[in-house]
Amino acid sequence: MADPRFFTPEGPFDLAELARRCGAELARAEEGGWQISDVRPLDAAGPEHLSFVDNKKYIPAFTNSKAGACIAHPSLASKAPPGMRLLLSPDPYRSYAKAAAAFYPAPRPEPGIASSASIDPSARLAPSVRVDAGAVIGPKVEIGERCWIGPNAVIGAGVVLGEDCIVGALASLSHAMVGCRVRLYPGVCIGQDGFGFAMGAEGHLKVPQLGRVLIGDDVEIGANTTIDRGAGPDTIIGAGSKIDNLVQIGHNVHLGRGCVIVSQVGISGSTHLGDFVVAAGQAGITGHLTIGSGARIAAQSGVMRDVEPGSQIGGSPAVPFQDWLRQVAALARLIRKKG
Amino acid sequence: MADPRFFTPEGPFDLAELARRCGAELARAEEGGWQISDVRPLDAAGPEHLSFVDNKKYIPAFTNSKAGACIAHPSLASKAPPGMRLLLSPDPYRSYAKAAAAFYPAPRPEPGIASSASIDPSARLAPSVRVDAGAVIGPKVEIGERCWIGPNAVIGAGVVLGEDCIVGALASLSHAMVGCRVRLYPGVCIGQDGFGFAMGAEGHLKVPQLGRVLIGDDVEIGANTTIDRGAGPDTIIGAGSKIDNLVQIGHNVHLGRGCVIVSQVGISGSTHLGDFVVAAGQAGITGHLTIGSGARIAAQSGVMRDVEPGSQIGGSPAVPFQDWLRQVAALARLIRKKG
Amino acid sequence: MADPRFFTPEGPFDLAELARRCGAELARAEEGGWQISDVRPLDAAGPEHLSFVDNKKYIPAFTNSKAGACIAHPSLASKAPPGMRLLLSPDPYRSYAKAAAAFYPAPRPEPGIASSASIDPSARLAPSVRVDAGAVIGPKVEIGERCWIGPNAVIGAGVVLGEDCIVGALASLSHAMVGCRVRLYPGVCIGQDGFGFAMGAEGHLKVPQLGRVLIGDDVEIGANTTIDRGAGPDTIIGAGSKIDNLVQIGHNVHLGRGCVIVSQVGISGSTHLGDFVVAAGQAGITGHLTIGSGARIAAQSGVMRDVEPGSQIGGSPAVPFQDWLRQVAALARLIRKKG
Repeated sequence: MADPRFFTPEGPFDLAELARRCGAELARAEEGGWQISDVRPLDAAGPEHLSFVDNKKYIPAFTNSKAGACIAHPSLASKAPPGMRLLLSPDPYRSYAKAAAAFYPAPRPEPGIASSASIDPSARLAPSVRVDAGAVIGPKVEIGERCWIGPNAVIGAGVVLGEDCIVGALASLSHAMVGCRVRLYPGVCIGQDGFGFAMGAEGHLKVPQLGRVLIGDDVEIGANTTIDRGAGPDTIIGAGSKIDNLVQIGHNVHLGRGCVIVSQVGISGSTHLGDFVVAAGQAGITGHLTIGSGARIAAQSGVMRDVEPGSQIGGSPAVPFQDWLRQVAALARLIRKKG
Repeated sequence: MADPRFFTPEGPFDLAELARRCGAELARAEEGGWQISDVRPLDAAGPEHLSFVDNKKYIPAFTNSKAGACIAHPSLASKAPPGMRLLLSPDPYRSYAKAAAAFYPAPRPEPGIASSASIDPSARLAPSVRVDAGAVIGPKVEIGERCWIGPNAVIGAGVVLGEDCIVGALASLSHAMVGCRVRLYPGVCIGQDGFGFAMGAEGHLKVPQLGRVLIGDDVEIGANTTIDRGAGPDTIIGAGSKIDNLVQIGHNVHLGRGCVIVSQVGISGSTHLGDFVVAAGQAGITGHLTIGSGARIAAQSGVMRDVEPGSQIGGSPAVPFQDWLRQVAALARLIRKKG
Repeated sequence: MADPRFFTPEGPFDLAELARRCGAELARAEEGGWQISDVRPLDAAGPEHLSFVDNKKYIPAFTNSKAGACIAHPSLASKAPPGMRLLLSPDPYRSYAKAAAAFYPAPRPEPGIASSASIDPSARLAPSVRVDAGAVIGPKVEIGERCWIGPNAVIGAGVVLGEDCIVGALASLSHAMVGCRVRLYPGVCIGQDGFGFAMGAEGHLKVPQLGRVLIGDDVEIGANTTIDRGAGPDTIIGAGSKIDNLVQIGHNVHLGRGCVIVSQVGISGSTHLGDFVVAAGQAGITGHLTIGSGARIAAQSGVMRDVEPGSQIGGSPAVPFQDWLRQVAALARLIRKKG
């Protein structure tokens, strides 16, 4: 399925090895030697392919699939076509992610420094670092083992990157301390001045922005997303948080661990999110708020008050999610009456 | 009008030639020899300029204009001042676009490769290609005749561009197959990983994104817009679609032909739009939906359900446009009563 | 407080000098010789630090602070702890901004042209200009004294920059005339074609965009913001206006002086804002509108009509702010009744 112009699978792997890698169990241990050359969707898979089923909607496709093997929840095992080998998993999608990563691991190019890269002599790069053409690395930057700095990326003075980070093409980083296994997609802008002014009719006066951006391990930050550095305190992105494209994160914002921030969300200055908060697309959160751990914020919400841990909210201004549904229904009734 | 620092008009052209190029008809054939040196708005035009009128609001300006010639709908011909030459067109704005393009054609710089560009030896560039300073072109890239790759743009391994494409400064492209006459504005990010994770408390696990971005002929994609590649299926942008700045298009999204996607719209993963869909500014469309051909989505709408072909919707959550207007009116009445 | 990896304070300064620079008055003139080495928040400051208090909420922190000196409004002077030196100011935050800028002035790197920059021979750069690695400067560009062009930035043909401008890393500028002391953050895209098409079933036809972007003195434009050039008229950003990250400004838009445009706002084509308009985050303003001076537009508003000078609006579609609050309250009442 994956176009060989762009993707070259590893492998083949036998089923026993894949079961081990993806945290699944072979339904029939004697099938562990079956060779798998690639992953494919149910309807495109053949005998040498591994597929997965994660949703009851796809049971017919599962039952009709020609896949040589499939990852499935034990409760669906009875729906498999005869002869299909099964890897049983309590979380088939997660197991699929691991199996697919066996065939298509994150890219890890050869170490080396492109001749057109500009690297300040005071920067310290681990020997296994790769720096692509046109990248610019400033004074006193420190870059850990196996990092990959993409083409024309710009890393400002003093920035520190841990191990195994990927900085995408044309990304810009300054005033930042970055953990390990962090992925920055193309065009991200991290560490520039926050939007801090002493406003006034005689002119808006810039307030020096003296903080940093601290990024935990295993964070991903999507294309063209912007994260301002702190004004004095730091802006902090907790470990394992995943941020989509075109998101804005203001100065002094804190994200806890494992937050999921979907595309085009905006988080204003000094707002703090707990762990595993989910903000859906285009939601906006005003400044100086506290959003409790596990809160879920619906798409296009406008959050103007603190949010309790574990609560779900929606609407603009945001209210408890059930109230928002009721408001929507009440408005619909209102025009039915008047109409 | 156009500042000669930035624009140099072609021409002059005589009216007969302009009529031919812009699909209009000379009201008086004997005026075909009149020389036109430039286009200008009605109120700034002189005898050597061509103007246009497309809106009844501008009839007074039309009647008072000193333009040597004007493109107008036949129904307005009687409002022209004496002596003004007329090019009659059923669609004056479209004719104006063509006439203006005669004077100001899309830029087509000299072929050649800047010495500071980095081009992988396995890339294949047609002889008439231009590559600007600092651009980086990866392995096995293929670039068709007369393409122009802007300064510091980055084109990843295997990408294919048809003929006559323009890739703006600082644009980033990967995992993409691009048609002919496609224009990518500065800062676009195309082909990076989609936002696909197997979520979980033990960490959100990246799901390998194994699809591509397929872009049809005559597509334009605005500055700093982001388009993720497919997760397995492809992300597809149909021929002739026009996408404004800062738009987000998620993985597996399909746009049909001739769609118009205005600035800051977000389209979530796996949603399919038919042909000639219009989405106005800041609208958001959730994932896995089907938006029928010819649908019109109002600004700031939040689309959470499938949309019928040809329908018009507005509001968040989006409802039929007339219902949205009624909801807005009902809310206004509600506070008039209570206030 | 400020991490010495990234920030090196100027100074020390004595209090008399700081009072002079920040427009404050020493409460006790005899303390003018006290040496200050840095600025710090109230709770982190010691005897050699200057702090500030601007909000009654922080009176306890003020009273308990160990700061050697503090900027405060005269009305709060009686709350100061014994021994704390006071700089009295009618606008403490503005005075703090000036004091902080004494320690942390805007960066001004050494003049010079990086060897990897590409500069057209016809460009004219003042002798004190700095151009960083990989920057690309086109034909006939003019750059004033003390400008700083960041790494991999791209400045297109004919662009003019006044004195003391900073163009961030990876910014893109074309068809623009820029004043003095303008700051463009990383990733901004200025001057590309506006989104102008003659729409039609036979294809959307590009209308040549023949205007410029004119940017006044003291403007700041945030990371990854996009500003299209005019279609014929110019796009104009008035002096002293401050624009946050990821903002979209369409062709022919005019901003007056001192406007504040917060992150992710979108302003559609040909809309004119007066002076000191404030548009909060994610607000959208449709095209061809007039927004009066001093108007304030709430976050996520959808502005579809002209706005009176000095008025405050909110909601989508936007209404007078008080009406919006009443609508929100009415909706809340509606579900309380029905629920």
